[in-house]
Amino acid sequence: MMLNSSDFEIVQLGPRRFPSPIAKAGVPSQSEKLFVSDQHRVAYEVEWQSGQQPAHPLSFEKAGPRKDLYFDPATTKAAIVTCGGLCPGLNNVIRSLVLELHHHYGVRNILGIRYGYEGMNPEQGVAPRPLGPDDVRTIHHAGGSVLGLGRGKQDLGVMLDFLKQHQVDILFTIGGDGTLRGACALGQAARERGQKLSVVGIPKTIDNDIPFVDKTFGFETAVETARQAIDAAHCEALGARNGVGLVKLMGRDAGYIAAHATLASEDVNFCLIPEVPFELDGDSGLISLLRKRLERRAHALIVVAEGCGIHLVKESSAHDASGNIRYANRDLDIGSHLRDTIVERLKSEGFPITLKYIDPSYMIRSVAANANDSIFCNILARHAVHAAMAGKSELLIGRCHGIFTHIPLLAVATQKKTMSPYDSLWFAVTQTTGQPVFGTTLPDIR
Amino acid sequence: MMLNSSDFEIVQLGPRRFPSPIAKAGVPSQSEKLFVSDQHRVAYEVEWQSGQQPAHPLSFEKAGPRKDLYFDPATTKAAIVTCGGLCPGLNNVIRSLVLELHHHYGVRNILGIRYGYEGMNPEQGVAPRPLGPDDVRTIHHAGGSVLGLGRGKQDLGVMLDFLKQHQVDILFTIGGDGTLRGACALGQAARERGQKLSVVGIPKTIDNDIPFVDKTFGFETAVETARQAIDAAHCEALGARNGVGLVKLMGRDAGYIAAHATLASEDVNFCLIPEVPFELDGDSGLISLLRKRLERRAHALIVVAEGCGIHLVKESSAHDASGNIRYANRDLDIGSHLRDTIVERLKSEGFPITLKYIDPSYMIRSVAANANDSIFCNILARHAVHAAMAGKSELLIGRCHGIFTHIPLLAVATQKKTMSPYDSLWFAVTQTTGQPVFGTTLPDIR
Amino acid sequence: MMLNSSDFEIVQLGPRRFPSPIAKAGVPSQSEKLFVSDQHRVAYEVEWQSGQQPAHPLSFEKAGPRKDLYFDPATTKAAIVTCGGLCPGLNNVIRSLVLELHHHYGVRNILGIRYGYEGMNPEQGVAPRPLGPDDVRTIHHAGGSVLGLGRGKQDLGVMLDFLKQHQVDILFTIGGDGTLRGACALGQAARERGQKLSVVGIPKTIDNDIPFVDKTFGFETAVETARQAIDAAHCEALGARNGVGLVKLMGRDAGYIAAHATLASEDVNFCLIPEVPFELDGDSGLISLLRKRLERRAHALIVVAEGCGIHLVKESSAHDASGNIRYANRDLDIGSHLRDTIVERLKSEGFPITLKYIDPSYMIRSVAANANDSIFCNILARHAVHAAMAGKSELLIGRCHGIFTHIPLLAVATQKKTMSPYDSLWFAVTQTTGQPVFGTTLPDIR
Amino acid sequence: MMLNSSDFEIVQLGPRRFPSPIAKAGVPSQSEKLFVSDQHRVAYEVEWQSGQQPAHPLSFEKAGPRKDLYFDPATTKAAIVTCGGLCPGLNNVIRSLVLELHHHYGVRNILGIRYGYEGMNPEQGVAPRPLGPDDVRTIHHAGGSVLGLGRGKQDLGVMLDFLKQHQVDILFTIGGDGTLRGACALGQAARERGQKLSVVGIPKTIDNDIPFVDKTFGFETAVETARQAIDAAHCEALGARNGVGLVKLMGRDAGYIAAHATLASEDVNFCLIPEVPFELDGDSGLISLLRKRLERRAHALIVVAEGCGIHLVKESSAHDASGNIRYANRDLDIGSHLRDTIVERLKSEGFPITLKYIDPSYMIRSVAANANDSIFCNILARHAVHAAMAGKSELLIGRCHGIFTHIPLLAVATQKKTMSPYDSLWFAVTQTTGQPVFGTTLPDIR
Repeated sequence: MMLNSSDFEIVQLGPRRFPSPIAKAGVPSQSEKLFVSDQHRVAYEVEWQSGQQPAHPLSFEKAGPRKDLYFDPATTKAAIVTCGGLCPGLNNVIRSLVLELHHHYGVRNILGIRYGYEGMNPEQGVAPRPLGPDDVRTIHHAGGSVLGLGRGKQDLGVMLDFLKQHQVDILFTIGGDGTLRGACALGQAARERGQKLSVVGIPKTIDNDIPFVDKTFGFETAVETARQAIDAAHCEALGARNGVGLVKLMGRDAGYIAAHATLASEDVNFCLIPEVPFELDGDSGLISLLRKRLERRAHALIVVAEGCGIHLVKESSAHDASGNIRYANRDLDIGSHLRDTIVERLKSEGFPITLKYIDPSYMIRSVAANANDSIFCNILARHAVHAAMAGKSELLIGRCHGIFTHIPLLAVATQKKTMSPYDSLWFAVTQTTGQPVFGTTLPDIR
Repeated sequence: MMLNSSDFEIVQLGPRRFPSPIAKAGVPSQSEKLFVSDQHRVAYEVEWQSGQQPAHPLSFEKAGPRKDLYFDPATTKAAIVTCGGLCPGLNNVIRSLVLELHHHYGVRNILGIRYGYEGMNPEQGVAPRPLGPDDVRTIHHAGGSVLGLGRGKQDLGVMLDFLKQHQVDILFTIGGDGTLRGACALGQAARERGQKLSVVGIPKTIDNDIPFVDKTFGFETAVETARQAIDAAHCEALGARNGVGLVKLMGRDAGYIAAHATLASEDVNFCLIPEVPFELDGDSGLISLLRKRLERRAHALIVVAEGCGIHLVKESSAHDASGNIRYANRDLDIGSHLRDTIVERLKSEGFPITLKYIDPSYMIRSVAANANDSIFCNILARHAVHAAMAGKSELLIGRCHGIFTHIPLLAVATQKKTMSPYDSLWFAVTQTTGQPVFGTTLPDIR
Repeated sequence: MMLNSSDFEIVQLGPRRFPSPIAKAGVPSQSEKLFVSDQHRVAYEVEWQSGQQPAHPLSFEKAGPRKDLYFDPATTKAAIVTCGGLCPGLNNVIRSLVLELHHHYGVRNILGIRYGYEGMNPEQGVAPRPLGPDDVRTIHHAGGSVLGLGRGKQDLGVMLDFLKQHQVDILFTIGGDGTLRGACALGQAARERGQKLSVVGIPKTIDNDIPFVDKTFGFETAVETARQAIDAAHCEALGARNGVGLVKLMGRDAGYIAAHATLASEDVNFCLIPEVPFELDGDSGLISLLRKRLERRAHALIVVAEGCGIHLVKESSAHDASGNIRYANRDLDIGSHLRDTIVERLKSEGFPITLKYIDPSYMIRSVAANANDSIFCNILARHAVHAAMAGKSELLIGRCHGIFTHIPLLAVATQKKTMSPYDSLWFAVTQTTGQPVFGTTLPDIR
Repeated sequence: MMLNSSDFEIVQLGPRRFPSPIAKAGVPSQSEKLFVSDQHRVAYEVEWQSGQQPAHPLSFEKAGPRKDLYFDPATTKAAIVTCGGLCPGLNNVIRSLVLELHHHYGVRNILGIRYGYEGMNPEQGVAPRPLGPDDVRTIHHAGGSVLGLGRGKQDLGVMLDFLKQHQVDILFTIGGDGTLRGACALGQAARERGQKLSVVGIPKTIDNDIPFVDKTFGFETAVETARQAIDAAHCEALGARNGVGLVKLMGRDAGYIAAHATLASEDVNFCLIPEVPFELDGDSGLISLLRKRLERRAHALIVVAEGCGIHLVKESSAHDASGNIRYANRDLDIGSHLRDTIVERLKSEGFPITLKYIDPSYMIRSVAANANDSIFCNILARHAVHAAMAGKSELLIGRCHGIFTHIPLLAVATQKKTMSPYDSLWFAVTQTTGQPVFGTTLPDIR
């Protein structure tokens, strides 16, 4: 897909008539240095062969406080909703949204919507809670979300009615790709109805698979905690003769957590991600490579992203002839499948091993944000407030080359960011593990 | 079982003819204050009703350096073996054994036996490795065991031959009840063969279920790490409407880890241990109590020890009519059983919940010892050296009321320490959780 | 000082007329197993030479819920005050006091007094805050004290008037020896005035120097964090040629933190505590021993308790001829004194070193309680509630051989627990560091 | 200073005659996708006003494995030296250098130089140690540097003679700006002498003040640990009436650590950095602002970078009339100065406070790298090996917009990266703290 910068134009709800109160904070003659204009662009592509610099590189609108606002801070009402599964940093985002709205824009009406989009459906019977500085004072020290999260869709009309009834002008939606698609649809529907509503998305995917952004919040904390699980598995592997540690990490479509945790651990021997195919059997299959490793060093460490090897798991289901009802969380689980298969296969070869399997998923999702993620969440949330108060809508706050940006929800709702076996990232993984660069089978060239 | 102090007499291999070199370290006139005599006793029972103090309370021999030694430090050879599963503190014990032997007794021949008792069977082809201060310099900063562990028995004769061939005088065995029974048998067999061998056990059970001792090493670290898993589950529970966190912890026969982690967390609502029966169904069954809790507070937190509810799991197996082959690690697992049953049952009642299940076992076993466990391992190991150099054998190093003691292996090999529903410990758990004191069914009075 | 058990009798405010509501929690026929009688004793001394068991060992009253209460839960009002400096676990104690009072005794009026005894002086203008379960929900996850602490005394009459005016029946005072002396005086003054007031102390000293108790809360957490500081200093020492790490730890009169952190670290070469004298100069002085260590290994690690070497610091002040006014926190600081003296002295000997000095005091005092301390605080607080509701006063809650006890405030207010150079604890320290057992000068025999 | 891309050309020692062995690792037909050509550029500037994209943006050579090598892996000898103070990640860099050289390029001769440049002066008597995979197996789990560090210069000729004598072809120098200037001079001197030597720098400054690079290793870990110190100070501040926490952080010329730790903590009220002037006195001075904050909220939290307020410290020295000799580490220390001055000044105003001062410097520098820094160090080191084996010299490995780059040492040796009060970073800090945007005095416009 070829994209150009005009594909990344941002919806503006209407003219901006209110001066930003942020200006008051600084020395007047200097204060306009603080503001960012809509003409400010950030380049997406930064690499080229000498002399072949692109004439019109893809670029995004830069985020930041605007000099004039669409919403009148004195009367604005904002709402915050968190959707999907836990991710480190949710409370940091909520807290910084509230503090920026309250302290810097003087917004006094902020609602926290409970349990995701469900909280905007009156039939569910969960009332929103008002949020102010006292409510968020210490929440950034804890994981989770003080609002609670929820999965699943709600009717757009029901949600818009709810927002209208509560006189909400701005909705901050924090969630993954499904949530952001919902936010996009909600913003469009509001415009169609003539309901003045700014919908600003803050992308939340622990898998880090949102396109056009450097990283998503919580990802680095997840990698930090994943490394601890890997260290534990390494310890178990070293503690037994022919000990094997196996760790399943998050990553349905993209192997970023597995790859980064492998690079951080520096002790992993095999890192398996959805983007790079591998086989279990055959001379260059995982089991054969693992056995060679064990014969040489008597211990081994494997990391597998949850989304990889789906073909293996399905085959295994097919082979099961008894027609039992199986629980999805067991049999579509590559981790348990690898555990059982590897142990059984090597046992049948007369090469018994001691395999310890760790699935740290919920222990990763629930921790508090580390320092770097806290910083990221803090600034991300404040930029979301700047964008919303300026009357922008149907956008998410991204970060590109370290600079915060505006990206239309429409542009990210249709694709996912994934790794490539030809990336320097994957190359670094293979240099670190010593495993074959292109997996055990040759992937198609993308 | 009534026991008296004479049941706790310690095997002495022979007369002590060598002065302890430890005396040199201190000021001569004071140095004998350092030594402990075999007559020094430590009382086991310390509670009574006023005026009813026991005349002959059960007591143990106090551990500590003896003034005279059985073994000549100049020629003594010691070996160390670690058996069973990982436990925090193994490397601390190994390190302090080596450093005490080397620096304070001047023992220069120390062997590390690889992978448990298996490493004393020449057929297994794993040679022992020599150990000195340089080999153990930094090992206490890591979890696991640098020697590797192994499960399973080996022939006593084969092991004694191995020890004789390597001229080993002292064997430090670090392991759980099976290992200690083996150590006991090994010591007896050596005496029968006239092979001069001191066998000193250091009890290792993460479950803390060794009788007559205050605690076993690694237990407090395990509780520390278990609390993190509980915090994670709490966070997950709070993050969803009718969210339930369920954590399975170690504890096959004894609920100490579950109980202590519950007391440490202070957020748990239901703590299930093997010693206190519970039912799933009925008005006072777990599912009914859980539902009431959720209706009141919308989230709940459950901790279950792995050894409890065996009858439930077996019933469940019995109910399954299809005759499938099942994997032991799935279907005799109370954690998964509770997860599936609770979710299904409440769903069928029209009360859907979001349950997140965490099994942190290997992430707990593999961490490095915390400060308190490090101290404990350090002193425990040094007392093991004192006992062995004095020619004591077939004993383990215990700690009673904070004082290190000698306990015959025979005395501990036949029973396990467990909690009672009438203990102050269990009472504290129920005060903390708010759950019924005596479980949901009345246990027999013990 | 010879003590006997009658010195440890506990003040009882009057007859107990109200049945404990705790009984309701259990199965009626079993519930009295939960209660503890005033005749239940816990022995203090547990060691003796064979055959010389003491006929009347010192013993304490056992803590625990009493069957009948002095205070009527329906009308009782309790207050909590925290005094002195920060200590890990303060919030855990506050939380468990509140939860036990509220959930198990049904006490609905609980006041949190702000900033220590100062908060009971109306002139200071800080009103107490009501405390209920919602106020303490998450406080145990944070260090510090939600009530704030304060130092210094207030007039007994002023405080009693305050308590009378607020109709307070029970005052829980959490603090160190000065605070407990104040609590003792307050209880006596109340009795003299005929004011019905139970004063229950919970000893808080990070130095662990309260007599007759196994340990004080926060101590183990302090050791854990102190070990991290020692690890940092070790790293710095290893990182430079002739690198020396120097860590000053808390311990004004007693070296428990320094000793335990040294045992936990296992990397320290010199541990200096107030109880064991040492000299800087001379052949067996610290500087000479340090130089020998550096010549042999090129790095060294020293831990010093803040209360030791006072004579050195004073001498140094005496040697300073210029008559300058000096700040107490600089020149009565053994850490800075050692840093400056060691560096200067070895430099003048032509043996330059790189010394890194760490004073982690406030980073230790402010952390949240670790798991073991959380458990301890939790149970300690609940026992304080049991004692107070039974109408006991002028006591503190101790723990002896793992069993919670009642100790009169009077008995502990006049002395401190310290280490002895003839203790097994100090011996273990010297075995671990390799330093001379009795310091570099011979202490008087105690 | 205007720079263009030609200022960033990299020294190449000579023609490349040896095929890279890295190619073997991949599938032959795909392997050249792994290699990076010298023509590959990375843009430095990525922001512009719409339509004003720079025609010739400043760009750097991209780092990565080259297809052909200057050095023959079979005979190449490499050396590694670490200089300056501790920084998290040193061992990770050393480890990945060794593993990349050994496993991927087949280099078998690697020397670790002890204690900085001093280790290349034979008169110092510290021999280098050979390094192989076994020597670095576990070092990444610990802070510090296994080679030891050293400060100070050595004669260029002496160092070149040492390297020649040891037949060293490649020198990896890990250190700060002084070290890198030394490395630059060494490379130039080698070229002048006709000694074939590749000098590759890996920038190490915990302050993150190297120009043209996204970040330096150890910085994020430092921020993580600094946040813990801030949390401790916050806890102390909350724990006393009018409690003030004051934390001094690293940052001689640049306030990056203070700024990022402030953003991560989200609890700081005043962040003071060298780049933004402030005054103590006057209506908008720190003391007045602090008092207002305390009157409103009764606690406050201040972070100060060590390099700021130098003018205040000097004035204070001037005010001291007694002519005493003072230790530099006391009186040029802004932390102690602020502590003493603030306490004294508010006391004299009749507004007593309780201030707790934390200087966590060595506890920050000595920790092990966090996951993100571990990843960064890992890849950084491998790129250093790629550059060196290709025969590049007098460069450092940078990272620009997430892509690893080559930067001539000459270009970075003469300047430092600092923050600006007009940066979005500083703006974010002031939004987070609520302090005045441009400090309490107006800085010159840069």
